[in-house]
Formats: sequence, structure tokens, C-alpha cells
Amino acid sequence: MPLSEKRLIDRIRRRAYGSRARSLVAGIGDDCAVLRVPPGHELLVTTDFTIEGVHFRRDWHPPQLIGRRCLTRGLSDIAAMGGDPRAAFLSLAVAGNVPQNWVDRFFTGLLDLANEFKIPLAGGDTAQSDHGIQADIVAVGSVPRGTAVLRSGARPGDRIYVTGELGGAAAELARLRKSRSAKTTTWKYSQYLSPHPRIAVGKILRRLRIASAMIDLSDGLSTDLEHICNESHVGAEIDASAIPRARNHQHVGERTPAAIALEFALHGGDDYELLFTSSAAVPARIAGVPVTCIGRILPSSGMRMRMIDAEGKSRPLRAAGWEHFKRA
Amino acid sequence: MPLSEKRLIDRIRRRAYGSRARSLVAGIGDDCAVLRVPPGHELLVTTDFTIEGVHFRRDWHPPQLIGRRCLTRGLSDIAAMGGDPRAAFLSLAVAGNVPQNWVDRFFTGLLDLANEFKIPLAGGDTAQSDHGIQADIVAVGSVPRGTAVLRSGARPGDRIYVTGELGGAAAELARLRKSRSAKTTTWKYSQYLSPHPRIAVGKILRRLRIASAMIDLSDGLSTDLEHICNESHVGAEIDASAIPRARNHQHVGERTPAAIALEFALHGGDDYELLFTSSAAVPARIAGVPVTCIGRILPSSGMRMRMIDAEGKSRPLRAAGWEHFKRA
Repeated sequence: MPLSEKRLIDRIRRRAYGSRARSLVAGIGDDCAVLRVPPGHELLVTTDFTIEGVHFRRDWHPPQLIGRRCLTRGLSDIAAMGGDPRAAFLSLAVAGNVPQNWVDRFFTGLLDLANEFKIPLAGGDTAQSDHGIQADIVAVGSVPRGTAVLRSGARPGDRIYVTGELGGAAAELARLRKSRSAKTTTWKYSQYLSPHPRIAVGKILRRLRIASAMIDLSDGLSTDLEHICNESHVGAEIDASAIPRARNHQHVGERTPAAIALEFALHGGDDYELLFTSSAAVPARIAGVPVTCIGRILPSSGMRMRMIDAEGKSRPLRAAGWEHFKRA
Repeated sequence: MPLSEKRLIDRIRRRAYGSRARSLVAGIGDDCAVLRVPPGHELLVTTDFTIEGVHFRRDWHPPQLIGRRCLTRGLSDIAAMGGDPRAAFLSLAVAGNVPQNWVDRFFTGLLDLANEFKIPLAGGDTAQSDHGIQADIVAVGSVPRGTAVLRSGARPGDRIYVTGELGGAAAELARLRKSRSAKTTTWKYSQYLSPHPRIAVGKILRRLRIASAMIDLSDGLSTDLEHICNESHVGAEIDASAIPRARNHQHVGERTPAAIALEFALHGGDDYELLFTSSAAVPARIAGVPVTCIGRILPSSGMRMRMIDAEGKSRPLRAAGWEHFKRA
């Protein structure tokens, strides 16, 4: 059954966290949403495309997960500024041959996460696409004036930290690629199955002025660290053995499950953990999430990023972009 | 040459109205843009998809026009609330076979309009799409608290007004469809070639509290009037002979150019004029733009919209959706 725009909009209006949100003056059903930002706050805005064949495959990924990841990408950017999420907007284009049931389940995943953070899906756009599915999420948040944590604040001598474990999403994706079918795969790495934007951690890091620079890990550690180096005009050295690598959380047995390969943790994307720098004392756990020191910021030089490998040798580290499904 | 994401972003950073915008604290190059909203203002947010094959055809529409129309759609929504535009964000997905030159010219059209309104292109996302071009524009604006003009404020007895002339975009499109090639066509109706969001008119209507309800004409008069009726729980009657129909502005000759067919003015979209209701005295021209009374708001009843035709007979009016290129 093809997507009916009016039915879809009515459905979202019914299910979205709407009139309960204090920040929302007018939502879906007008030319613009009208939002209230707390006095003295600045506004945070981010947009992220999620495209079939590039960011997900319909035969690999359950629709709820795609919907949840779609909003996670936006909220994770708000977290990386130390912000409070206020509202989300979704522009969704769907080809005529996509079943209504797929769209419903996509919204279930997205709205479940929106409800967790008590933010309204305040508007957006729907269109019939020629080909496949394209979703653009807009997340709006706020921070007290002048306190947003930027990428540009890292200084030589700062330590480099990450939250949680890295590489689970990339490891899961490699497993999917190998098995060539989602049906024969059980999900092992929870980050990929049910990513959780680190809003609470980001807010604490901002409020206590712990983080000098911050970014979320969406493109992979090496790429996102390079963004901090570029914007802060600094270099960085990380210690390979310190990087917290994802483990199989569904492992049942006596031995500790083996950690995934370093490459996944170093270059794999879609983890939605936070990477930040600090010159302050940093607790080992913030809002229940483990925080690990993985290196330090250096003065800028010709060789901008380096890594101390398992043998204790320092070698150049290059950003290796996260490629999603381009060559899947 | 395929789209290079980094080159594209660098190019936008150079060309976009950026550091000059007082409202922009941090723009492209961080996880979120940071915006400042004037104290006592509420925020307006709108998103609009522009999709190849649905909203435009590459062989019919020059890239500058597509870029300009893309942002026009967002700014026109801000105008319809009586708002001041503050910033724009663009998520752009482009297939590998689209030339860099096409993308450059698209941005020329979009940034020219952004510069006209002195708003920054403050961020967005770029992706390589599997197929064609998808652009999602986000426009952010503001209004003094409590003053946004909603669709829901129309009351029985209010008069119905439109700005400018209607149907030019639909007439131009019909010409294109007939000639089957943009090359043999000269553009006749300026609205389609160079749409101009009615920000100045919208602000005056809001400030002087003239408009009780307002919407922009993007889907066509019949459809957009129905949105006002639905949200305001009222009916409407319009006078066919009063609707200001577009004329060929490039006509050179002694006779007045013929107005386009009523159907174009009644159901054609993409005009980006304003439709509003008012119980006050309304000037014939606002901010240089003609304003025409075309009917009145009625109490809601079974037959929600009607039209007095050329013979003076009242007949039901049905919303006939604007279909873009779906059947082109």
C-alpha cells in the first residue's frame, strides 16, 4: 500500500510527544513549528541525512532500528555540544513500493527515542520519492549562552577521552556483510542495535566545564579526532592499547568475550559515543557511562595525529573515513 | 567529476553569509550550529524536501533556479508566520554522476537568495545518493513571543486576501510539459523563474495585527485555503473573478497580455504568495506588493469551501492537490 501523506501526518500527530512538551507553542499543522527557548539560552541546530543504500539496507536493518538511528544521529550532535534537546523535525521521502507497515515501524523506533528524551516531533515534510527512502532529521536543542562545547577548544596538554566502548557498530556491520543476510544473524553489539545518544554525559561535561572540546563519534575515532585537531589547530597522540573496544554483550559463557579488532574501534562509525578533551580531573564514570583516557593533545606539527601501537612504537595515524554501505 | 564532500563544504564556508550574521555564534564545522535568538522571541522552524523527478527535472530547470526555489520554500513558510528569517540549513544528497558544476550553480541560486535576506547558511549535511538529487532545506526564523500568525485564527466574517498574482508557476510548467524541452522555451512568468518569498509583507501583516490567519501558497490556492479552513474550523467562499491571475510579464506589444486560465490560479502551486484572512482594513498594496480580496470566511458547514463562478453561481470548491512532476 503506498504511503498516504495525510494518513501519515495524522498518525504522527496522534503518536508524537506533542502538547505535553512545554517548549512547543505550535507543532505539526502550520507553516512552521513555533518553539520557546529558555531565556538566556542559545539555540543548537543540526541536520543529518539517512539514505537507503548509503546508511542502511532494508534487507539488513529492521525499520525500528533505522528510525531510532535516524534520531540518534541528531541527538548525538546535541550531546556533543553539551546541549539539552528541545524538538526534532523529520523530512521523509518514501518510494511508492515501500509498505505502509515499514513506515509505521520506522516511526515506532524514532518516536520511542523521542519520547525517552521527552521531545516533540514538531514538524517536517513528507514526499513520495522516485527511488528508495531518504530521511533527513533536524534536531534542535539549547545551551545557556556562551557555554556550548565546540570542537575548537582543545589545547596542547589536554587529555583525550571517550565514553563507552567503540567499534561495536562496525563489527556488527562486518558480520552482516559476511553473512549476506540479516536473517541468519543475531545482533551482538548493543550499540548498533539500540544506540543511545549521550545527552546526560554531554550536559554534565558542559555544566562542570570539564570538556575543552567535544565531538560525537559518528564517522569513527580517527576521522572525528581529526576534526577536533583541524578545528583546534592542534595535534594528537593516542594509545592503541587504551582504546575501549566493544565486546559481545550477548555472550553467555565462562570466559570473558573477546574484544573486537582494533581497526573497528579506530575507524568504524555509528557508535554515537562522545570524544572529548580536558585539562581537568575526569571521573571514571559519568551518568553511569564509563569514561576512558586514550591519549593527549599535542602542539600542531607536520604529522598531526599519531598512535602508540601494541609494541610501544609511535606511528602516524590517518583518518580512515567511515564508508557505510558504499561498497557493500 | 563526482562531488567531493570536503571541497563542497569548504566552498560553502567561503561563500555563505557567515561571520557577518550577528545571530550566528558557530556555524559550519561543528556538531551543531549555535544561534542567538533575540530576547523575548519565539523560534520558527520549517523543513521542505526538494526532490529530483518530483519537484524538478534537471533537463527542464536551471540549477540556479532549483537552488533558489529550494530556499524560497523555507523562507516562504517563515513569511507565512509573519517571521524574520535567522538562518538556513541544507541537507544535500547528490548521485556520483551529477557534475560538480551543477552543484556549484545550485548553490549560487541558493546563496544569492540567502544573501538577499542576510541570513547565513549555517550548516547541514552532504551525502552521496544512490540516485538523483535530494535537497532538504531547513529555515529558522523568529517572532516576538505570542505574535506568530497561525493557520487557525480565521473567523467567520473575515475577508480572504492574496498577495501578487497566482498561477504563473503552473502555467509555466504546463508550457514546459507541452514543449517537452526547456531549450525551446523562454520563461514567461517571473514567479516561476525567480520566486521571491514575501517576508516583508508577512512582517507588516503580523506587526500591524492585520492577518487573523495566514499560509503561503505552495500547494495551490484551493489546497492551501482548505488548510486554513481545517485548522480554523471554518468554511470559505471565494469569487473566481476576483482572483488575480498571472500575466506574461515578458510580453512586448500593444495589447495587454492575456491572463492565464483560472485552473492554474486556483490549483497550481509554487507561487509562494501569501493567503491570509482579516477583519481589519487592508491596504491595496503592502511593501510594494498588490493585495487582493478574493472572498470571505463562513461558519463551518457540510460544504466547507465554495466558489462563485463567472456566471455568479455558487458551487462547491474542492482542493485539487498540486502534483509537481509525478505524472510529467
